[in-house]
Amino acid sequence: MLLSGGLDSATTLAIAQSDGFDCYVLSFRYGQRHAAELDAARRVAKSLGAAKHVILDIDLREFGGSALTDDIAVPKDRTPDSSIPVTYVPARNTIFLSFALAWAEVLGAQDIFIGVNALDYSGYPDCRPEYIAAFQQLADLATKAGVEGSRLRIHAPLIRMTKAEIIRKGTELGVDFGLTLSCYDPSPAGKPCGHCDACQLRAKGFAEALV
Amino acid sequence: MLLSGGLDSATTLAIAQSDGFDCYVLSFRYGQRHAAELDAARRVAKSLGAAKHVILDIDLREFGGSALTDDIAVPKDRTPDSSIPVTYVPARNTIFLSFALAWAEVLGAQDIFIGVNALDYSGYPDCRPEYIAAFQQLADLATKAGVEGSRLRIHAPLIRMTKAEIIRKGTELGVDFGLTLSCYDPSPAGKPCGHCDACQLRAKGFAEALV
Repeated sequence: MLLSGGLDSATTLAIAQSDGFDCYVLSFRYGQRHAAELDAARRVAKSLGAAKHVILDIDLREFGGSALTDDIAVPKDRTPDSSIPVTYVPARNTIFLSFALAWAEVLGAQDIFIGVNALDYSGYPDCRPEYIAAFQQLADLATKAGVEGSRLRIHAPLIRMTKAEIIRKGTELGVDFGLTLSCYDPSPAGKPCGHCDACQLRAKGFAEALV
Repeated sequence: MLLSGGLDSATTLAIAQSDGFDCYVLSFRYGQRHAAELDAARRVAKSLGAAKHVILDIDLREFGGSALTDDIAVPKDRTPDSSIPVTYVPARNTIFLSFALAWAEVLGAQDIFIGVNALDYSGYPDCRPEYIAAFQQLADLATKAGVEGSRLRIHAPLIRMTKAEIIRKGTELGVDFGLTLSCYDPSPAGKPCGHCDACQLRAKGFAEALV
């Protein structure tokens, strides 16, 4: 499963663990602005008892094109609209899921978990249910397991949940959200900015969840 | 476009160039057994006049599971059968195409070329027409461009060609196949072994093409 260190993927890990899966957890050092989210991923993987946590290096700064991987400012106190914001990293989830697919195939795993959600989110194209369905179709054709008849299932348990529902679910499963970091632009010490899209969605979620 | 340094991707590059595309070419240092194929990729990109050549580092040895990325011997003088050989690298083309998709989106490119072929090949699942069609569907949903209505097209011009047809096409377009390297297990100096699947398919192709 893919783990970013944010609250969505932490809750997804807790769901997979409570469903009885042994979780092999994958994070990426992809050229993001800050390493604080990888510290959060390490804390979360350890606290929830992942079987193994791998952090892969892939340098998406070679391509640039996003506020998260290039010298483009992270927008603050933005009013959400229907456009795709500059924090979108081109094809990021496709790259992350491709690596998950590779590792799953080597491990003989038949399940991949990803914490995307399509309600309280930043409007990225690769967080939508139809995107996940297309990756499922690709996975069925891309692998040796698929050719030999077994099916690798992509799970996106949060995809139709609101942020408040995710927070309530995580709380119920014992996730310590104090270990997670959602901010796109934290201080070097890992303090969230409070003003980017991710901070705003997070604050609204806790308020609505009454947590 | 994706370039490995072998004869298929060299011919694909020549086709794209002759069709008038400015080619931004992507290769990977993915933990393969030898760097000789990257030397070949550099020679080919230069000789055919690519606009830009990027070599990305991604360490697939972290997962292992293939004779090309792990301590598993490359089979020699194998009689082809219907099984998927140990030289298959789990999800490799999915990972490569995902990075191509990311770069294409940043460049504003609307075309991705990949030199897979499904006739004289090693039986890998991610070289089949139905796999490429599934990636096309994914690309339409995965990107900002897709959401905004423009369509990124995946081109696999060799997919239904025999190795002999590829060699004849490349020859016609002026590809210097002496610059390419197909071998899965060359000497440190880049001399092909002559006995792996790739060497055998290549030799058979040249014999049939009368080149």
